[in-house]
Formats: sequence, structure tokens, C-alpha cells
Amino acid sequence: MRLRNLKNKEEIMKNSKVLIENPEDFCGNWANVFGNSFPIHVEIGTGKGKFIESMAKCNPEINFIGIERYDSVIARALEKVDTIPNLRFIRMDAFLIDTIFNHEISRIYLNFSDPWPKVRHHKRRLTSEVFLQKYDGIFVGDGEILQKTDNQDLFLFSLCSLSQHGYHFSEISLDLTKEAVKNLATTEYEMRFVEQGYPIYFLHAHKSKR
Amino acid sequence: MRLRNLKNKEEIMKNSKVLIENPEDFCGNWANVFGNSFPIHVEIGTGKGKFIESMAKCNPEINFIGIERYDSVIARALEKVDTIPNLRFIRMDAFLIDTIFNHEISRIYLNFSDPWPKVRHHKRRLTSEVFLQKYDGIFVGDGEILQKTDNQDLFLFSLCSLSQHGYHFSEISLDLTKEAVKNLATTEYEMRFVEQGYPIYFLHAHKSKR
Repeated sequence: MRLRNLKNKEEIMKNSKVLIENPEDFCGNWANVFGNSFPIHVEIGTGKGKFIESMAKCNPEINFIGIERYDSVIARALEKVDTIPNLRFIRMDAFLIDTIFNHEISRIYLNFSDPWPKVRHHKRRLTSEVFLQKYDGIFVGDGEILQKTDNQDLFLFSLCSLSQHGYHFSEISLDLTKEAVKNLATTEYEMRFVEQGYPIYFLHAHKSKR
Repeated sequence: MRLRNLKNKEEIMKNSKVLIENPEDFCGNWANVFGNSFPIHVEIGTGKGKFIESMAKCNPEINFIGIERYDSVIARALEKVDTIPNLRFIRMDAFLIDTIFNHEISRIYLNFSDPWPKVRHHKRRLTSEVFLQKYDGIFVGDGEILQKTDNQDLFLFSLCSLSQHGYHFSEISLDLTKEAVKNLATTEYEMRFVEQGYPIYFLHAHKSKR
């Protein structure tokens, strides 16, 4: 997500009713935050929130949490996104994800994540072994990861890394724009890529027993 | 592989020193056929034999077996291919593969296999669950499958099917011609596709424990 400083970001974040300020306080108790025991889906790198807002509106019986690292970016999401009972945001580095959830997440969405192209940075990719180990600790039941990206190298890395960590795939697309993946909202990035005619890669991975 | 009838195919097959006529007789004893205990790699759908001949010449400490269903096609391979100590051929439908090998194959090559595009024929694909179960019975140690194809639909099917059957991937390419996969010979089909500028998909799958 491109960074443009937002002057009143502190104020927006302070006044937000959907931003969880101390997420570590709710580790193991996220059902209490939402007041129900619906499944919880997380988007890591939620950007300006278009995807997760659409998903939350279309799926009232699923709780959604958008995680975003940058103040200025999440402040824009908080500005724009409607207040919906099944949607919350966290401003946090994804590296800490296993400190705020404890076997309570059903699904992770990774949309147009940073591809970290340099080999020495591959461990920072959100589908690297480092992160997959963290996800093991946050998933409840059969964990699922749905990834969209325009970056072929990151996509192929994810297919290898996920399969090596015991995931299998139910759906893979090399050009999501030409196919209809049901119930999957679009992101800001995606719209731009589609307009420019670039292919979007997609995978749906499951940690469950085959 | 396109079929053109070869009039003297019976004679070629009869006189061949590298065609194994009754492969079921050697089930569990293929080391005796080669007179050594080198690993055995099989190509299913070997066509005119260009790939497997190159592989056998470059890898004298691996035994290679090319399996081909059609008389006319395998007869052309037998006509052309040099007699090499570590290379044999079998004329057989791949569906019977588990009747001729018993935990003695290390690697399977699938090059430009029939894509069977109709959904009701998907079980005939060489990476369908039907075949993967057969391969379980022929692999010794950690089984490996290396697939090349120009057919995107077959390729994506293979990624899903293999991962669902416990394979993981060490290498995936969406355009093999632009990359250097070491020690992998080209096939007749491949040369034609490369000349025409089509991408070739490649995967290297492992059944081993992660």
C-alpha cells in the first residue's frame, strides 16, 4: 500500500469505534469482542479496507478483522469504511499476529501482499515458513489461506511454501479476472490491475487433513 | 502423440532389444533387467523417445523405462533410439502400471500428457487420484513426479490433485522456456511449442515427508 501521510491520522484512529487499540488484550477472547461465536476471518495487509468492508457486508455471519501496518493507510480505511458490527481493524505488524490470536481464526486473506523480491527478504513474505508457523498457532480447526497477487514470483513461491508446510489446494487461477471465484470481493489494487489488463493469480489453500 | 500407422511396426517391435515384451514378468525384479540397483525413472507416454534417450545418455547411473501405449509410436522410438544399457521400453496402457512395478520406481516423468479436457474424462489424466493411488504402489522411498505441459488446465489440475494427495512442490514454472531447469532434456512437443512461443508449464512434486 502506497504511503501518503495523513495529517489527522492520530485523531481518526483515536476516535474510531472499529479500531482495536490493544489487540493483545483479547488474545483467545475475540468471540467476546464481536459478542458471538461466528467464524473469524483475517485480512493481513488490509490497505484502505475496500475488500474487507465488502466481505463483511456480504457475510454477516462471519466476523472480519483487517490488519494493517501503517498508520496513514489504516486511518484512510477508518475514515471511509462503514461501521459494521462484524468488522474490526488492528494497526499492527503481521509479524506479531501470533501474539494476538490463539487458535481462533478460520481463514486468512492475503491480497496483493508485498512481494519482497530479493531472495534475502523472502522470509518476510506472508507465505514464508516463518509466517506459516505463526498461522499454525492462530488457526482453529481447518485453516484456510486465500491469496491474490499480481506478482508471479510471489505466487509460485506461495504454492511451493504452502505445499511444503502441509497445505493442499482446492482452487488455483492464473488469471482471476477471466474466472468467477464466488463470494470474493475485489480490492483497490485489483481494480487497477484488471483495468490495465494484467493477470491476477489466485490460490485457495487448506491446512486440513486431506 | 499423433498417430501415423507404421507398416512394419510388428517387425520393429519383434526385433527390438530394448522393448520388454512381458513386463509383468519382472514386477519386483526390475533391478535384474538392468543388472544393477541404480534408481529407476519412468516416463509415461514416452512418444518417439527423444526425451528419455537424452536423459539416459546423460545419466548413466540411472535406469530409464519409457512407457507408450501405441504400437506405431513406440515402433518409431525403437527405430530411432540408440541401444543404451540403461534404457528400456514397454508398450502398455499406463492404467496397468501398478501391475508391472512394485515399490521400485524413484521418479515419474509426465511430458505433454493427454489433457483430457472434458470433466467426465478428468479421471483419465495421469495426475488424477486414480493414477496417484497407483503410483503409491510403484514408488520406492520418496516418490517424485516431474510434469511438463503446454495445457494450463491440466497443469492447474495437477497442482491441486498432487497437493491433495500429499505431494509438495520444490519447483514450479509458468514458462519453462525462460528458465533453466537443470538436467532436464527437451521433448519433440516442447521444441515445437518453444518455436511457436507458447509457454510451457513445469512442476516438480515430491511425495516424501516434508
